[in-house]
Amino acid sequence: MSEQQHKFVLDESEMPTHWYNVVPDLPAPPPPPLHPGTREPVGPDDLAPLFPIELILQEVSQEQYVEIPEAVRDVYKQWRPSPLFRAHRLEQKLGTPARIYYKYEGVSPVGSHKLNTAAPQVYYNSLHGIRRLTTETGAGQWGTALSYACALFGIECEVWQVGTSYDTKPQRRTLIEVFGGQVHRSPSRMTQSGQAFPEDHPGTLGIAISEAVEVAAQADDTKYSLGSVLNHVLMHQTIIGEEALRQLAKAGESSVDLVVGCAGGGSNFAGLAFPFLREKLAGTQDPTILAVEPTSCPTITRGQYRYDFGDTAGLTPLMKMYTLGHQFVPSTIHAGGLRYHGMAPLVSHAVDLGLIEGRALHQRECFEAAVEFARTEGVVAAPESSHAVAQVRREALACKETGEEKVIVLGLSGHGLLELGAYADFLEDHLADDPLSEDSLQAALAHVPTV
Amino acid sequence: MSEQQHKFVLDESEMPTHWYNVVPDLPAPPPPPLHPGTREPVGPDDLAPLFPIELILQEVSQEQYVEIPEAVRDVYKQWRPSPLFRAHRLEQKLGTPARIYYKYEGVSPVGSHKLNTAAPQVYYNSLHGIRRLTTETGAGQWGTALSYACALFGIECEVWQVGTSYDTKPQRRTLIEVFGGQVHRSPSRMTQSGQAFPEDHPGTLGIAISEAVEVAAQADDTKYSLGSVLNHVLMHQTIIGEEALRQLAKAGESSVDLVVGCAGGGSNFAGLAFPFLREKLAGTQDPTILAVEPTSCPTITRGQYRYDFGDTAGLTPLMKMYTLGHQFVPSTIHAGGLRYHGMAPLVSHAVDLGLIEGRALHQRECFEAAVEFARTEGVVAAPESSHAVAQVRREALACKETGEEKVIVLGLSGHGLLELGAYADFLEDHLADDPLSEDSLQAALAHVPTV
Repeated sequence: MSEQQHKFVLDESEMPTHWYNVVPDLPAPPPPPLHPGTREPVGPDDLAPLFPIELILQEVSQEQYVEIPEAVRDVYKQWRPSPLFRAHRLEQKLGTPARIYYKYEGVSPVGSHKLNTAAPQVYYNSLHGIRRLTTETGAGQWGTALSYACALFGIECEVWQVGTSYDTKPQRRTLIEVFGGQVHRSPSRMTQSGQAFPEDHPGTLGIAISEAVEVAAQADDTKYSLGSVLNHVLMHQTIIGEEALRQLAKAGESSVDLVVGCAGGGSNFAGLAFPFLREKLAGTQDPTILAVEPTSCPTITRGQYRYDFGDTAGLTPLMKMYTLGHQFVPSTIHAGGLRYHGMAPLVSHAVDLGLIEGRALHQRECFEAAVEFARTEGVVAAPESSHAVAQVRREALACKETGEEKVIVLGLSGHGLLELGAYADFLEDHLADDPLSEDSLQAALAHVPTV
Repeated sequence: MSEQQHKFVLDESEMPTHWYNVVPDLPAPPPPPLHPGTREPVGPDDLAPLFPIELILQEVSQEQYVEIPEAVRDVYKQWRPSPLFRAHRLEQKLGTPARIYYKYEGVSPVGSHKLNTAAPQVYYNSLHGIRRLTTETGAGQWGTALSYACALFGIECEVWQVGTSYDTKPQRRTLIEVFGGQVHRSPSRMTQSGQAFPEDHPGTLGIAISEAVEVAAQADDTKYSLGSVLNHVLMHQTIIGEEALRQLAKAGESSVDLVVGCAGGGSNFAGLAFPFLREKLAGTQDPTILAVEPTSCPTITRGQYRYDFGDTAGLTPLMKMYTLGHQFVPSTIHAGGLRYHGMAPLVSHAVDLGLIEGRALHQRECFEAAVEFARTEGVVAAPESSHAVAQVRREALACKETGEEKVIVLGLSGHGLLELGAYADFLEDHLADDPLSEDSLQAALAHVPTV
């Protein structure tokens, strides 16, 4: 065994100072969000009850780069720059000539990429004397991140957690509470949006969003915070890809063949992918960019690119996005963070432009790849991230056939240490694949509004 | 908020190449271990059924430095050098003039310092064609580490987990299995040592050691691996302190006032402390060095410095150490890794020489400090590590009174993400303190053999 470099680390002084906004670089402008009532493009005033002005301006920004505030950089430095690893042992195990790198966001205090946007969102709210933030959480990673960020800036945090996650993951709730946040099972009895469903309903992200939005809209000192989907959220995550590009240069890789991330709402995926997309659009690199989703919630691969609501109750603006229909209820797979009916409008737009491709995988293949990854690389991937791991495994094995020495970048959005119940199900062969039937897909799509 | 440096990282190229052996630097040689039958000092032959020759030689080494094999350095580089953090936010919260640094081992693939010794132990066994390793585990951190290290070097791993941990921590068992290891509840029905106890006994580390040793001693292709206590284990952990010294120098700290670690068997503590002890003995620094233990298992603070067995059944050599008696059964506190009746002989010897001091804390104070630490520094400490966190909190608050700008180094041996049930108990006020009564202490000490 020769001495190989495993990690490519950056010093704090090398951390990017700006987020990247892909919008001005795209060959066509993304379609605007529409007001749910008037169906006219929404303006800043429409969003003001929910978000501070800085985030609203970022949402519609045409600037290519937006400076990261010093207070946010100070938070980032608790774990950033995050490491880029070369997966030597996995390559050896697979016998692939591909060179596999993984950008690992699980080193953050909350165990995932979500803190990249929680920190600036809470910071901007703190500038306006906001007392409380509400939000939804699926797998629980976003709720954890917002809870911790709120602890840092002295703001209260109230989280509506999707029922099925709440019921099966008490540890996740505890972690949110350790950081100081308060957790409600969604659908709750506290909101009209929740009361529309039976108390034992498994819940969806769409319902939880409706509940958190409803509460925030009713109180002056309370705003709402969203963990994915929106343009400003995706932009905050681009520090992932910006760092990865710098780290790949340190590893001697001037060009990448393949960028792979899992995609639920799209933020971790976009955070890694958009800086590479910039290089692709500039012609300096030409990577294939893959967004991997579960077969049970196949937004890009089987959804339609249409205007739809972001939540179940129809309180949010209409966004043009790949959607399965805002009333779609996915099966209770373990990758709770991928159970969203839509895909971020910017990611959807890039797919529509042919710049990004979707792939869908069954969860058993994902866990099988994740166990192999754990035994070689030592990282127990989040069930969400395991989708990217499994797709990379496919690609690396294809390289073994063709002999191609592809350079592959894998986005590992978080660890799965609070999801070991899912791994136990897999190891004990209790894990089912749950493909989506064409009938139920068509039934859900029938509820997408006609715009 | 000014831009402050939070992390002091080392490049892989700056990782120490040697472990430090404190033995030749001590002012008096440590008393030798004795054969359990003859009561004569044990020789290499006595240990050969359990350990490979390289580890036996390290156990009795008089060399000040032992080179880390290249294959082990290659494993270390998956996460080492581990970060040293400056706890700016905690200092601010406490209002202390002290400068608090924490060396964080939770970034390892297994979430604790244990992989520092699991990797070399498995590597040396792999040189001799060993098929299987057996071991015990308390909290589960050591079993996890050995399981992962065995996966890397292609050796089978069988773990006897202390019953109370096995029953209350299914996630820990799953993690060991994800890495490929096999887990038995201890006391098991598979060994004579286990059969001596009722099947529903909560277990102790001492019993689990007896079981693992018994199985290893009976098979030629099987060796035993111990996660703490022994000299070679402590030596493998010294990479922690060696890195910390280099990182403190980068932080501009040429001298440290206080080094604080939690101590169960003593390995994480010694790993941090012994390189600082070398500086203390050389007169280049003069830190106070504190080993923190639970009041329910107060080995240093209330035990006796005597020869005793390392396990409950009396299969191991007699070691001179601070002990509560090898038949001592501590209460089922959440810091499972601190529930050991003895203290590493080298740590005990240094305490006896007046070079190291012990402190004992109740678990509620530890969790209270750990929640504060999580909300400021973002790290959910292992219940074991929370003892060091709480002691540092006391010291930092004392500095607030006196105005002393002490430089404090805190050993954070691992994260507590698999111990969130303990945090939930604390947050819901279900956590009891369980001090050890003088009567039960004396009863346990009565079983220490007279040598």
